[in-house]
Amino acid sequence: MIEKAKSVKESLTEMNELVLPNDTNVLGNLMGGNLMRWMDIASAICAAKHCEAHVVTVSVDHLTFQEPIKLGDVVNIKASVTRAFNTSVEIFLEVFTRGVLQNHAHKSNQAFFTFVALDDRTMKPKEIPAVIPESELEQKLYEEAGIRREFRLVVSGRIKPSEATQSKDFLNQ
Amino acid sequence: MIEKAKSVKESLTEMNELVLPNDTNVLGNLMGGNLMRWMDIASAICAAKHCEAHVVTVSVDHLTFQEPIKLGDVVNIKASVTRAFNTSVEIFLEVFTRGVLQNHAHKSNQAFFTFVALDDRTMKPKEIPAVIPESELEQKLYEEAGIRREFRLVVSGRIKPSEATQSKDFLNQ
Amino acid sequence: MIEKAKSVKESLTEMNELVLPNDTNVLGNLMGGNLMRWMDIASAICAAKHCEAHVVTVSVDHLTFQEPIKLGDVVNIKASVTRAFNTSVEIFLEVFTRGVLQNHAHKSNQAFFTFVALDDRTMKPKEIPAVIPESELEQKLYEEAGIRREFRLVVSGRIKPSEATQSKDFLNQ
Amino acid sequence: MIEKAKSVKESLTEMNELVLPNDTNVLGNLMGGNLMRWMDIASAICAAKHCEAHVVTVSVDHLTFQEPIKLGDVVNIKASVTRAFNTSVEIFLEVFTRGVLQNHAHKSNQAFFTFVALDDRTMKPKEIPAVIPESELEQKLYEEAGIRREFRLVVSGRIKPSEATQSKDFLNQ
Amino acid sequence: MIEKAKSVKESLTEMNELVLPNDTNVLGNLMGGNLMRWMDIASAICAAKHCEAHVVTVSVDHLTFQEPIKLGDVVNIKASVTRAFNTSVEIFLEVFTRGVLQNHAHKSNQAFFTFVALDDRTMKPKEIPAVIPESELEQKLYEEAGIRREFRLVVSGRIKPSEATQSKDFLNQ
Amino acid sequence: MIEKAKSVKESLTEMNELVLPNDTNVLGNLMGGNLMRWMDIASAICAAKHCEAHVVTVSVDHLTFQEPIKLGDVVNIKASVTRAFNTSVEIFLEVFTRGVLQNHAHKSNQAFFTFVALDDRTMKPKEIPAVIPESELEQKLYEEAGIRREFRLVVSGRIKPSEATQSKDFLNQ
Repeated sequence: MIEKAKSVKESLTEMNELVLPNDTNVLGNLMGGNLMRWMDIASAICAAKHCEAHVVTVSVDHLTFQEPIKLGDVVNIKASVTRAFNTSVEIFLEVFTRGVLQNHAHKSNQAFFTFVALDDRTMKPKEIPAVIPESELEQKLYEEAGIRREFRLVVSGRIKPSEATQSKDFLNQ
Repeated sequence: MIEKAKSVKESLTEMNELVLPNDTNVLGNLMGGNLMRWMDIASAICAAKHCEAHVVTVSVDHLTFQEPIKLGDVVNIKASVTRAFNTSVEIFLEVFTRGVLQNHAHKSNQAFFTFVALDDRTMKPKEIPAVIPESELEQKLYEEAGIRREFRLVVSGRIKPSEATQSKDFLNQ
Repeated sequence: MIEKAKSVKESLTEMNELVLPNDTNVLGNLMGGNLMRWMDIASAICAAKHCEAHVVTVSVDHLTFQEPIKLGDVVNIKASVTRAFNTSVEIFLEVFTRGVLQNHAHKSNQAFFTFVALDDRTMKPKEIPAVIPESELEQKLYEEAGIRREFRLVVSGRIKPSEATQSKDFLNQ
Repeated sequence: MIEKAKSVKESLTEMNELVLPNDTNVLGNLMGGNLMRWMDIASAICAAKHCEAHVVTVSVDHLTFQEPIKLGDVVNIKASVTRAFNTSVEIFLEVFTRGVLQNHAHKSNQAFFTFVALDDRTMKPKEIPAVIPESELEQKLYEEAGIRREFRLVVSGRIKPSEATQSKDFLNQ
Repeated sequence: MIEKAKSVKESLTEMNELVLPNDTNVLGNLMGGNLMRWMDIASAICAAKHCEAHVVTVSVDHLTFQEPIKLGDVVNIKASVTRAFNTSVEIFLEVFTRGVLQNHAHKSNQAFFTFVALDDRTMKPKEIPAVIPESELEQKLYEEAGIRREFRLVVSGRIKPSEATQSKDFLNQ
Repeated sequence: MIEKAKSVKESLTEMNELVLPNDTNVLGNLMGGNLMRWMDIASAICAAKHCEAHVVTVSVDHLTFQEPIKLGDVVNIKASVTRAFNTSVEIFLEVFTRGVLQNHAHKSNQAFFTFVALDDRTMKPKEIPAVIPESELEQKLYEEAGIRREFRLVVSGRIKPSEATQSKDFLNQ
C-alpha cells in the first residue's frame, strides 16, 4: 500500500441516466445488462479517481435488483470506494430510481465491484492509496469488505474454506 | 415447486460473439460492462427456457474476470441452470475466449446469475420446474447453490448471520 | 407562471461519462454528436425535475467546443436552470473534462438548451414554476436569458429585429 | 482564405434516416439528442467536402425543434455551406420530415453548425476555400452569417458587446 | 398491380454516412453487417415511398463487397426501384465510397433487396404501383429483374429448375 | 487449396440472441438489417475458424425472410461451411426462431455468405483448407455451391452467361 491515503468522498462519483426505449427489455423495463453497463462505467470512474491509474474490473458481487426500473425513469448511480487491498479496490454502488414526475427516489439496486489498478507503462498491477473511512456507514463497509473478499477467494478456489477465518467469525457472531 | 422436473441440458444455451471496436474499453480490451450485457442475455434465454416463463434478473454474484479479452477475440458463453428455488433459478455462466487465429479457447470468466419467473398474466412470481442434476459437476453446482443462496440472503440482510447454517458447515468442512 | 418558485440547486443535475471507443470520431476524439446526445439527456433530466413534467427540447444555442475531448477522458456534465418563461425553461450546461490520470478537470464546453413542459394528459404546453436565482452567477444567467431568448425569436423570424429592445440595450451598453 | 472559391452546391449533402424504436424518447418520438447526432454527421461530411480537410465541430447555434418527429417517420437532412471565415465554415442544416405513408415532407428543424478545418499533418487550423453564394437564399445566408458569427463572439466573451457593429446595424434596420 | 405507375426517380433515395470507430470490424474497416444495416434502411425508405405503404424485407441477393471501406470514409448509398411484382418490389442499391480528403468516389458495393408492401390495416400483402423504367440502365435492370426473381424462386424451392424458362434463355443467349 | 481438409462440424458456430426493443423496426418486429448484422458476425466466426485466418465478407446471396420475428423472440443462428474455393469459403446460415414461452423453434431465414481469407501479414487472399462434406445435406450444399458461385460470377459480370455451364445443366435437369 502506498503512503498516501484518501477519504471516500474524494472519489465519490455520481451518474444520472434516463431509461430510453433503447435500454429496455421485452417487458418494457430497464434491461439488467444495461444497468450493469452503466454501473461498470460509474464504478470504473470512481476506482480510477481513487487509484489515479487505469483500472480493470476483476469481480462483481452481490448485485441485487429489488424491483423493475421503468421506461422514462431517472436512474441515479452513486459509486464510492469501501477499502483498498494492496493493488485492488472495492467499490460500493447504490442505484436510486424515480419516475420523471416524482420528487422522491427510492433505492432499487446495490452491488460491489472490484477493480485492479494498472501501472501506466508496464500494465502490471500497481499499489494504490489506502481508503480512510469516516462516517459510520463507511466504517461498516470497510470492515465487511474483508469478509466479502475472503468469500470471493473461497468461491474462486484461491483459499480453502477452512482458511476463511473472518467469514467464520462473521457467521458465528 | 411444480411437479415436472427438467435436466440441465434441456435449457443449456450457447452464445458466440466477436469483440468489435464497439465493445472495447479505453485499453482496447472488451469492456466489462459489455460482457455483463451479453451474459445477461445468454442467462435470461437459458432461465426462460427452463421456466417456460418470462424471467427477470434478481442478482449477479461471483462474476470474475481472470484476464483481459482482446479486440477481435471470439467469446463463447455457456449458460446452464444449477438449481431451482420455488420461484427462482440460479444460472451458472462460463465464458471461453480464443483469438481468431487460435484453435483453443481458455476460460476467462464465470458467474452466477439468479432469475425470478413471472406469471404471464399477473406478472407475479410463479413456481418453476425443479432441476435434475446429472453429471458430477452438475451435482456439485446444485449442492453449493444452497450455500451461495444463503450467503446472498445474509449479505442482503434478509437472514441473520447466525441462521446461515449451510455456510457455516461449508466453511468448517 | 404557477405560484410555486424553485431555486436553481433543487434541480441541479450531474452526469459523469467515460469516453469509450464507441463514442469517438475519425480522429479518435469524442464525436460532437455524442456529446450533444449526453447533454440532451442531462438537461432533460434537469428540466423535468424543475418542471415536474415531461419536457421536450425546443432549441439548442451557443454550444461551443473549446478543445477536443480524448478517448478515455472522464466527462462531467452539469445542468442547471437559468430562467423559466411561462411554459419553457432554459438550461445552462457546462462540461468539464479530465484525463483518467489527472486530478484536475477543465471546462471544455458550454451550451444553452431550452425545453417546453407538457401536461401529462393533454400533451399541451403547461405553466411551470419560476426560477429563484441566488448566487451572482445565477443572477447574471437569469438576466441574460432574456436577451438570448429575444435573439432566438429574431433568428427564427417570430419577432422583428426592431422589436428586440433588450438585445439592442445589451449591445449598446 | 485560399485562392480557390467553391459554390454551395459542390458540397451539398443529403441524408435520409428512418426513426426506429432505438432512436426514440420516453414519449415515443425521435429523441433530440439523436437528431443532433445525425445533424453532426451530415454537416461534418458537408464541411469536410467544402474544405477538403478533416474538420471538427466548434459550435452549434439556433437549433430549433418545431414539432415532434414520430417513430417510423422518414427524416431528410440537407446540409450546405453558408460562408467561410478564414479557417472555419458555417453549415446551414434543414430537416424535413414525413410519415412513411405520406407523400409530402414538411420542415421540422433547422440549425447552424460551425466547423474548423485541420491541416492533415499538423492538426492545426488551416485556410479554406471561400464560398460563392449564388441563389437569393444563399446570398441572404451568406450576409447573415456575419451577424451570427459576431453574436457567437459576444456570447462567448471574445468580443465586447460594443464591438458588435453588424449586429447593431441588423437590429436597427 | 394497381393502375397508377411511377417512375424510378420518384422514389430514388440517397443516404450519406461517415464510417466511425463504432462501425468498424477487427481490421479497422467498415463491418459488412453494419453496411447491410444502412442498406436495409435506405432501401426500405425507397420501397415505402414507391409503394406508399409499410414494407418488410423478404430477400437480399447478389450483395457484393469489392474492397474494404475504411474508417473515416464517406459512404454514399443510392437506392432505386427496378421492378414491381404484384405485391413486391425489387430495389437496386449502389454504394459509392470516398476518403474524406478525396474528391472522387468509386463504387464499392451493389445489391438487390426485395420488399413486400403491407396493407395498413390488415398487415396482409397489398398490390403496389408498377415501375416505369426510363433510362437505358433502368430498362436493363427492369428486364433482368425477372431472371433474378426466377432464380430466387428456384433456390428457395418454390419453382422447379425446369420451370425457370427466363433464366435458361438468359444463360443460352 | 492447402493440403489439410476439414469437416463441416469442426467450425459449426451457433449464436443465440433475444430480440430487444433496441433491435426492432417500426412494426415492432426484428429489423432485417439487425438480423443481417448478427448473421454477419456468426458467419465470420465460422469462416475464420475453418480458415484459421482473418476473413472479410465478399458476398451475401439468397437471404430470405419467411415471416416476421417478434420482439422478445429467441433467435438461434447456425452457421456452417459448405465449400471452399481456393481463397474463399461459402457459409450456409439457418435462423430458427421461437417465442420465449414456446418449446419449439421454426426456421425463419436462410442465407449464403461468402468470405475471403486474408494472410495475417500481407493482408492478401490466402489459400484455405478444403471442406469435407459428410452428411447428405452437407453433400447437397457442397454440390450446389458451384452453381451458386457461377451465378454470382454471371450477375457480377465476371463470366459470360454462355460460360455458366453448371447453371445450365442444373436448370435443364
